Order: sequence, then structure tokens, then C-alpha cells
Amino acid sequence: MLQPRGLLLLGLLSWVPVSFADPIAIAIHGGAGTLTRDSITPEQERDYLAILNTAVQQGYERLQHGAIGSDVVRETIQLLENSPLFNAGHGAVLTFNGTHELDASMMLGHNLAAGAVAGVTRVKNPIEAAYAVLNYSPHVLLSGAGADEFAESQGLSMVDNRYFTTLGRVEALELFRTQYNHGKVQSGDEKFGTVGVVVLDTSGNLAAGTSTGGMTGKRWGRIGDSPLIGSGTFADNRSCAVSATGHGEFFIRWQVASDICARVRYQGLDLLVAANQVIHDELALAGGEGGVVAIDPKGNAAMVFNTEGMYRASINSAGDKVVGIYRDHAGTVNQGQDVSDG
Amino acid sequence: MLQPRGLLLLGLLSWVPVSFADPIAIAIHGGAGTLTRDSITPEQERDYLAILNTAVQQGYERLQHGAIGSDVVRETIQLLENSPLFNAGHGAVLTFNGTHELDASMMLGHNLAAGAVAGVTRVKNPIEAAYAVLNYSPHVLLSGAGADEFAESQGLSMVDNRYFTTLGRVEALELFRTQYNHGKVQSGDEKFGTVGVVVLDTSGNLAAGTSTGGMTGKRWGRIGDSPLIGSGTFADNRSCAVSATGHGEFFIRWQVASDICARVRYQGLDLLVAANQVIHDELALAGGEGGVVAIDPKGNAAMVFNTEGMYRASINSAGDKVVGIYRDHAGTVNQGQDVSDG
Repeated sequence: MLQPRGLLLLGLLSWVPVSFADPIAIAIHGGAGTLTRDSITPEQERDYLAILNTAVQQGYERLQHGAIGSDVVRETIQLLENSPLFNAGHGAVLTFNGTHELDASMMLGHNLAAGAVAGVTRVKNPIEAAYAVLNYSPHVLLSGAGADEFAESQGLSMVDNRYFTTLGRVEALELFRTQYNHGKVQSGDEKFGTVGVVVLDTSGNLAAGTSTGGMTGKRWGRIGDSPLIGSGTFADNRSCAVSATGHGEFFIRWQVASDICARVRYQGLDLLVAANQVIHDELALAGGEGGVVAIDPKGNAAMVFNTEGMYRASINSAGDKVVGIYRDHAGTVNQGQDVSDG
Repeated sequence: MLQPRGLLLLGLLSWVPVSFADPIAIAIHGGAGTLTRDSITPEQERDYLAILNTAVQQGYERLQHGAIGSDVVRETIQLLENSPLFNAGHGAVLTFNGTHELDASMMLGHNLAAGAVAGVTRVKNPIEAAYAVLNYSPHVLLSGAGADEFAESQGLSMVDNRYFTTLGRVEALELFRTQYNHGKVQSGDEKFGTVGVVVLDTSGNLAAGTSTGGMTGKRWGRIGDSPLIGSGTFADNRSCAVSATGHGEFFIRWQVASDICARVRYQGLDLLVAANQVIHDELALAGGEGGVVAIDPKGNAAMVFNTEGMYRASINSAGDKVVGIYRDHAGTVNQGQDVSDG
């Protein structure tokens, strides 16, 4: 997608080796947690890497062909929601009451438009509901039965709540209930598995989206960080786009997504430095586990987490692809951070 | 509440005219909107000024006696919730369906602890529910029937939904429905009336809280900025405490509360400068109407709004009291900002 400026320079300076195409970039995550080689079978590893690779590659190619950021975020998250491997859409975790309550959000960096839903139970793809709220409602955040009703009124695909259920999540709830009945507090991976996508499109616009089933055994209409602008999702062309995954309560209190962007905007920090400060200095010290994927207006991508691993993939403005699960994956430096400068 | 350091200096330097007591400060709002002298009767003006004065004075005296910030925020907001004059608790606006769905949040600046409820229908004082979530749940944000259930399990005072109804709000909904049936879009004060309190206590800790009935005619489980950490409420001892009121969707997208604090923390701006930038430069340009009250760790108080008026009151660390409604109220400089430096 060469623009006039690029074409002109290409004519004058055809020996310059770099591309003059507008920078594009994409980064995705499928949740963070106690992901070690011991805890994942080779088959599972292969399946996760395959879908992460497919998702990031398809999204990147859509960006190459000029698709706008909101569409790429939407389509890529749909692909992850439809996979049973992730805690979003089909494959979402179960609440304390044995049902599914799903959350999703989306934000656009060029006009700070945002849409989100919390606690929907019948929308097949919650990210589509967030997109509809962004475009077709005067509101930013709709919740519960009202959000389902709005989604249905927009003609979105609706399903029975059991559509989201998979055997693994039923077993996870049974384990949770057993532990709960023995007085054990939640401590592990039942909190993670959210999916998220951030992109820079050919118009130079950032966009971010996040979708989740929340945490196994959640109750009282608990809302985590995923549908909350500034907590789990944020995008501003003046700084960066972020999607988060992890122990949502910490991500709300620390305003993880918007704080990373605030450090970029107000302190002039590199994206990776800002993300490291928030995830490792602020969150890790407080005991908040999780990670983020983020992209800045130049197409730098950062994937930073303080857990054992994070399902993740990115292609930055230089075309460098990273697909990984574990902290020590190739392309990953120490402390769980992937560097891919544009 | 003189501290040893203060007493020592007082002994050595008894001629110094300033107080050595730890600084305390409080600022409150009761909503922003088209508040002009023409639109308010002398009796209404007297009633609003009286309760604003009572609330800020009682809160200040509690702080003087060493009450912790979370208690002062809680008690002061309860007083405003129990008054029919404000759109919070008794006197809250009605939803599209003719019921009340109430939101509230609280955050503490020393540990970033936070609690919030969205869409509760039976808790007499939603700020008490937010406080209970903060202290007695592993979560930050509970919603809907689950949030009511949690509040009841904590022994909070529960009421029938009709407890919140007042004649003025019934008439407002009727007007809204008439306009809605004629295709008119919401445009005015039906969006405003939220209450909020920020304090600096004798321990040097900031706290913030906000409570609202939302906007007249809201539907689809709409959640505004009031229960959202970073949007309507934020507190961090490293920067400031903020409570917002206004057109919630803008306050979510612009992350008003946390953005003011980010500018203080990362750019070293004075609180008033930061609040002016966000409310006048960012929000007003985007068409987002409303305002904030804010306090910094030195006890400076800022009350800034881009509407015709904001019900407000503050007492800063120097003991200066401001109580006002209109933009041109004594103590107010132009552009709807009250200065009260500590």
C-alpha cells in the first residue's frame, strides 16, 4: 500500500533499501499464566502455536491489503473466540453458578471511540457486540441482559449459553468447587486465558481489542479488566495500543493499559520500557500476574509478561514475526519480554 | 493532630505563623450541568448551598479529628445519597424501563485498593456496597443482581427499588420518553447529577469516591464512568485523587480521572493545570461536558468544569472554604475553575 509520498521518494531514491510502505504491525495474545514446557503436551503446544501463527499471519495480511484496524481486531479476535483453546467465546470458563458470562472491548486510537460489553451470555462473538456498541450505541459499556438485548437488536449471531461450554472448563469448575469447599482461595490459572489484539493499520491508526470469559468460579456479576477501557484495553494514536491479560483486579487498580500509554505520551519512554515498568516494576511488586501486547505508532511491538508464559504472536513494521508461549522462547529476552522494534 | 515533628518545630520556632498540623483537605461535587441563576430558584439555591456546606464541613471536621479517608468519603457520600437533591441514592434518575440502577466506586491512594458496584437496585447506599467490595471481596467491580446479593450478604441496608424514586425524576423520565418518541436525542442535564468526594487525611493518604444514578432513560445495562476506576474515580498518593461528573462516555474514553493524575505524576504539573488541560483542552474540544474535584498530597484542591455550573465545595489544607454552584461564583476564576491552593 504505497502512498504518494512513498512513491515519489521511491522514484527519486530507488537505491534506498528500506520499504516506503506505510508501517503496519499486529500483536496478539491468548492469555498468560503458569505456562511451562512441563505443563503443556507437545500436541497442545503444536495446536497453540499453529492458531497463534494463523491468527497473526491472517491479520497481518489483511493489514497489508489495507483493512482498517477495527476490522482486523474484530476478525482476529473472532478467530480466537471461535477456538476452544482460549478462554473467550467457545471455550470460555464457567462462573460459580455454572454458566458463562463473557466480556469484550474495543478502542480506536484516532478518535478514542470505544465500545464494550460485560456479562453477556448469548452473543456468539462478544467482540462483535463490543464493536456494535462502539459504532451503533451512544454508550461505551453495556452489561448483562441489556447488552445481550442490544446485540440481538443489532442482528448479531446469538447462541444458547451452552454453546460456550467445553469439557475442560467443566472439569476446571469442578476442581474450583472442590477447592472452594475446602476453603482454598483461587490462586492459579483459572484467572487467565483472555485473548487480545492490537494493530497499526496503513492509515497510521492504532486499535485494540480484548475478549474473555473472565475467571473460573467468578460470581456476584464480577467484571474484570477486559471490558474496561484503560484497564484491559486502550488505544490512542498519540501513544500506543494495549491489550492485557492476567489477574484483572490488579489490572484495574493499576490502570495497566492506559498507564503504559501515559508513560509513552508524557515521559517519552519507548513502548517496551513503559510496558516493562508497569508489568515488572509496578504489577509484579504488588503481586499482580499477567501481561500485555502493545504497539506504538511507529509499528514497534512489545509483548511483556511477569508469568511463566503467555500465548503470543506479533509481526512488527519490519516484518519480524515472533510466535511464542514460554518465557524462554526464542526471540524472548529475560524477564518475559519480547522485543520486536519496528 | 500535631505530630512530633510539628511539635518540635513549634517549640523551636514558635513565631512561625503557619500551622504544623498535617495537611488535610476535602472537595465534593453534586453534579455539573446547565446550572445558571435563571434555571435555579432562590429556594433551590439555598438548599443546595446548605447541604454542600454541611457535607464539606462535616467531612473536614471528621478529618481534623483523625478519621481515615475511606470513612470520610463513605460518610460524606452517604449524606449526599440520602438527599433527594442529587442523582445518587434517594433521588436517583430513572432508567428507560422506569427503574433505578445505581453505580458507585471508591479508591484509596496509599495501596490503590478499589471497590465498585454497577447497576445495583436494592442497596440503600451504593457507596457502602463499593466500600464492602473494596474491603471484603477479592474483586474490584461487581454488577447487577450479583452485586446486590453480595451487598446483602455483607449485611448492608437493603431497600425496595422505589425507595430511590422522587417526583422530579418521574417527570424527567416522562419528558425523556416524550422527546425520545419524537426522535430527539439526549442533550441535556439528564446526564448529570453524580456526587463525589475526594479527601486527604491526617496520615497523608488520598481517597476518592463517586456515586450516581446514571443518566435518565439509560438502557441495555449501560454503565457510565462513575463505577469505573480511572474514568470517574481515581486515587494514588503519588499524584492525586479525582472524582468526576458529566457525560460518562467521554470520561471513560478520555480516562479523565487517571489522566489528570498521570499528568501530575509524569509531567510534574500542578493539579489545577493538569485538571484544566483534561477538562478544557481535551474534553471540551471533543464535546465532553462535565467536571471534576481533585486533591493532591499537599492538600491543594481543584474544582474544574466546562459546563455552566457544578455543585461543589472544598476546604483545602490552608482551611480556605469554597462553596459554589455557578461558573461566576465568588472564588471562581474564569473557565469554570476554582483555585484553592493548600
